[in-house]
Amino acid sequence: MNAARKAVEELLNLIDDIGIIGVGTGSTVEEFIKQLARFKNTLADKYFTASSLDTILKMREYGFNTIHPSSLNKIDFYVDGADEVDPDLNMIKGGGGALFLEKILTYYSKYRVFIVDYSKLVRWLGERHPIPLEVNFYALSFVEEYLRNKGYRVSIRRPVKGKYGPVVSDTFGVIVDLYLDEPVDINSLEHELKTIPGIVETGLFVKLADKVIVGYEDEAKVLEKK
Amino acid sequence: MNAARKAVEELLNLIDDIGIIGVGTGSTVEEFIKQLARFKNTLADKYFTASSLDTILKMREYGFNTIHPSSLNKIDFYVDGADEVDPDLNMIKGGGGALFLEKILTYYSKYRVFIVDYSKLVRWLGERHPIPLEVNFYALSFVEEYLRNKGYRVSIRRPVKGKYGPVVSDTFGVIVDLYLDEPVDINSLEHELKTIPGIVETGLFVKLADKVIVGYEDEAKVLEKK
Repeated sequence: MNAARKAVEELLNLIDDIGIIGVGTGSTVEEFIKQLARFKNTLADKYFTASSLDTILKMREYGFNTIHPSSLNKIDFYVDGADEVDPDLNMIKGGGGALFLEKILTYYSKYRVFIVDYSKLVRWLGERHPIPLEVNFYALSFVEEYLRNKGYRVSIRRPVKGKYGPVVSDTFGVIVDLYLDEPVDINSLEHELKTIPGIVETGLFVKLADKVIVGYEDEAKVLEKK
Repeated sequence: MNAARKAVEELLNLIDDIGIIGVGTGSTVEEFIKQLARFKNTLADKYFTASSLDTILKMREYGFNTIHPSSLNKIDFYVDGADEVDPDLNMIKGGGGALFLEKILTYYSKYRVFIVDYSKLVRWLGERHPIPLEVNFYALSFVEEYLRNKGYRVSIRRPVKGKYGPVVSDTFGVIVDLYLDEPVDINSLEHELKTIPGIVETGLFVKLADKVIVGYEDEAKVLEKK
């Protein structure tokens, strides 16, 4: 069974306790939506919300309406992908620029399942991907200069095609990537970044996964929060 | 000498070290701009930036152009008002809804002067004003519910006239007011609030004032950071 199907199975196991389902962003999530569509009758009384415009559109393709997050005060079950997962199930997210809404939906969800390919498992966060930051555009140069002065390697993310200048997220922030050259204390880093005015959110997801479903060539393994 | 004139004097005393001047928001600041306009020749080679659309427009009335904050990576001198100032010169700001940009400009300024009427001096922050929070609109109900569950008294700010629904700031956030009934540890509160996803910024300005100029009926007193 592939990882996306396994995530749908997790959802179906808890179906009686679930009213609102949050759906993340990315190619893994698209596979999840596809698998989910097979159970449309079972899900007829459920409500969905999405972490990005991309997911809203994809959900619509499969016949699912999504609720505006601002009309919700909790989510029962959240599914998303991740860019890196460390041995404590801490994660980097935001490769697709949706980290702010993803963090919001994850944080206010009761149960959080992440689907990744085994290549996303790392020894330490930052090993292969930068940590994306959503920065308010007014503060962009201030934050860039501040982080450089602190010794961090940062770069304003730019789209490969389709837009001049920085990537602007669905939540109107600019994405700045912060590169780590070696393992750091993720809790301290998250705390430091969150207290810098103008940084609206970080792509560090610390202790926010209940389960991580890891897809291998011919199986899916489930890692649980210790 | 009134407090706004005193603030202009502070600026003129440091004039050779100042290239970029940040200007806050509010009625006290308007008086500052008016006083500043008397020294236009002295200020001919200086650049200005502003913490709100309101200030951009007011500066323009007095013949000052303002630079977009995103083109700056530091500010030399910042002037603003405040809603409450405690004995340690910690402040509540954001009565006018501009707290996010005000916090950004304050934080990245080398020298910060605040002008207040003596009625703004309080024994503890929250004594007379709520603490404004800028909240991303997607997260509005999540954050409201979360804070209520934590025991905080909060209310979404609404304009008295001119718009239906919540106040939306110049930085596209919704303003939520958090009311304190008694003194709390301001550092812990600031830390707690900043780590809640969806809260983009708080109106708590902890250790961010170098000088507070307090206006009385017939004099202005200067309080300095200890």
